Amino acid sequence: MAKQQADNITMASGGTYSLATRGAKDVIDRATPRVLKAIEGLGIPADRARFTMADMGCADGGTSLEMVSAVIEAVQRAAPGVQSTVVYADQPHNDFNALVQIAHGLGPFESWSRRFDNAWPLVSGSSFYLQAVPDTSLDFAFSATAMHWLSEKPCEIESHVHMVGASAEEHAVFSARAEADWLTILQHRLRELKPGGRAVFVNFCRDAAGHYLGNTGGVNMFDTLRDIWHEFVADGVINSEELARMTLPQYYRTVEEFAQPFDAGLLPGMRLESIETAQVVCPYAAQFQADADLETFASGLIGTIRSWNQSVFLGALDGSRSLDERHAIIEDYYEAYRVRVLDDPTGHGMDYVHAYMTVVKDS
Amino acid sequence: MAKQQADNITMASGGTYSLATRGAKDVIDRATPRVLKAIEGLGIPADRARFTMADMGCADGGTSLEMVSAVIEAVQRAAPGVQSTVVYADQPHNDFNALVQIAHGLGPFESWSRRFDNAWPLVSGSSFYLQAVPDTSLDFAFSATAMHWLSEKPCEIESHVHMVGASAEEHAVFSARAEADWLTILQHRLRELKPGGRAVFVNFCRDAAGHYLGNTGGVNMFDTLRDIWHEFVADGVINSEELARMTLPQYYRTVEEFAQPFDAGLLPGMRLESIETAQVVCPYAAQFQADADLETFASGLIGTIRSWNQSVFLGALDGSRSLDERHAIIEDYYEAYRVRVLDDPTGHGMDYVHAYMTVVKDS
Repeated sequence: MAKQQADNITMASGGTYSLATRGAKDVIDRATPRVLKAIEGLGIPADRARFTMADMGCADGGTSLEMVSAVIEAVQRAAPGVQSTVVYADQPHNDFNALVQIAHGLGPFESWSRRFDNAWPLVSGSSFYLQAVPDTSLDFAFSATAMHWLSEKPCEIESHVHMVGASAEEHAVFSARAEADWLTILQHRLRELKPGGRAVFVNFCRDAAGHYLGNTGGVNMFDTLRDIWHEFVADGVINSEELARMTLPQYYRTVEEFAQPFDAGLLPGMRLESIETAQVVCPYAAQFQADADLETFASGLIGTIRSWNQSVFLGALDGSRSLDERHAIIEDYYEAYRVRVLDDPTGHGMDYVHAYMTVVKDS
Repeated sequence: MAKQQADNITMASGGTYSLATRGAKDVIDRATPRVLKAIEGLGIPADRARFTMADMGCADGGTSLEMVSAVIEAVQRAAPGVQSTVVYADQPHNDFNALVQIAHGLGPFESWSRRFDNAWPLVSGSSFYLQAVPDTSLDFAFSATAMHWLSEKPCEIESHVHMVGASAEEHAVFSARAEADWLTILQHRLRELKPGGRAVFVNFCRDAAGHYLGNTGGVNMFDTLRDIWHEFVADGVINSEELARMTLPQYYRTVEEFAQPFDAGLLPGMRLESIETAQVVCPYAAQFQADADLETFASGLIGTIRSWNQSVFLGALDGSRSLDERHAIIEDYYEAYRVRVLDDPTGHGMDYVHAYMTVVKDS
């Protein structure tokens, strides 16, 4: 096992990640036919005794419960006597108490582990930057909405919070880190997969139209996140060093970037079977279109946005501020975003833009 | 997977379990030669690719780190190319955040997972009353100081806190539950072990001299625990219904009771290779003998005692009391024990009395 340590970034804990991220589940639901096709591609014989899959970067595991259930059902249909193991993996600062309870059906969702005999959840504290299980252990690997997190922040993005708004120079640094990280991620999966094994990755991307999460034609969410911090600097709430540190260690790859290590022959024994990009509409914006309930829309949207970035922003605030003060700034920040939505909801939302891909290891 | 739910009893959390239970680690250290003999008995060939073990009822995993390390070392010596997996299992309300961090070496202890390439921790939220992994997955199963917890409390023990002080009638009810539970525990392990696999269980017991945890010739710890609650009733601090609920759902088996399902032919395909009882001295009492530091002794002893029973006692207090009041009663209770030790330390301590056994599944 490599000794590299995963980062300290955490999703909202206590099972609230899945509650706050209905859209992340919609994305996995959209990927499920692709997943089931990959399972079919495994050609599981009727006398197969064992099946092992992994969900990598699973957070609290709530968003993938139904997908996992569909996989186990398909595998049991192919091989009625099979015993399945599902390895839920995330970095060691993840909320594993929430994950275990959700996997065992003790959380707010129904779990496959209560429905199926002969199927067991296991949990790993190895991030996808590490090998998580022995060589040739996995029939199937899955990951959704996780691999945009880089192994480290390669530089600060001075005048924005995200690489989508980086300068050319900053972009090049982020791009190089993302290229190396993607290769590392795939090399570990190449070792973990059995011969003939398959993986489905559903990753945030920049699509052919230049769209990405929260930027699909309306108000650009990331520009809004940046603008409010700039206002906070102008108003003297935070200082410019803090602003510079407000850099999400993420990279949204293009289809070409996802294909690059395969095209470059860097992964002998593994091929990218198919890749497509697709948009999944913001569930909060969709509900607002239907019910025109502005308060609910603004609260839901802000809740889903903050669930994945507030730990980064909180960590960027100066340590000389009291923890109470830091929390107060964070609350004011998201409140400012909420007020913008309340003032004029037009174009606000967080549509998802993902690349859906299937990877196959040679038999 | 059985749908039976594990109980709600929790050990002290946040990694404090292992810190408060130096003695539990001493017990595992004492078992390690037996463990290594069992590993030797597996006859692992030099070309073995995979080794899988489990630590069941592991709490935060801190007490077994060195034992696990010794096992992996022995397995890698036998088969240099082997890749090992260690499944840490405990009931779903265990503190898995502490467990993952300790297993990954991010807690207060050094972990084998940082020392060895080719060895990975996995975590399971299945208690030992459930099958935790697929059939014939495990080369080796281990459990220490855990299987005295019954699957449920079969009745209240009216005038004591533990079965060691139960009436004959209460004892019979506890004994029947313990017999059924022990068989269930072994039947699951029989399925999980590979043919020829081995298990080492280190369980609290009542030995041939009638000794058991905290009762090895000096002051009887369990009688002290009872006496203080009786005083609390006499003083009107708690009521008699609460006293009756102060019943630890535990059973200390005898060697004969551990051997019973094997002797009765209830486990075809599995045999009890060896069993012995042994005492491990209370580390706090031993240190007090050496340094005569009474304050440190009293605090250390009370800390280790409360780490495994305070959640039960807290849960026995009436729900109509405020949580603050319940916590205050619990603090007063252990303080009363501490004062007893300070007043006269003679004979106080928590010596461990365990049965150490090796179980073999037929090849």
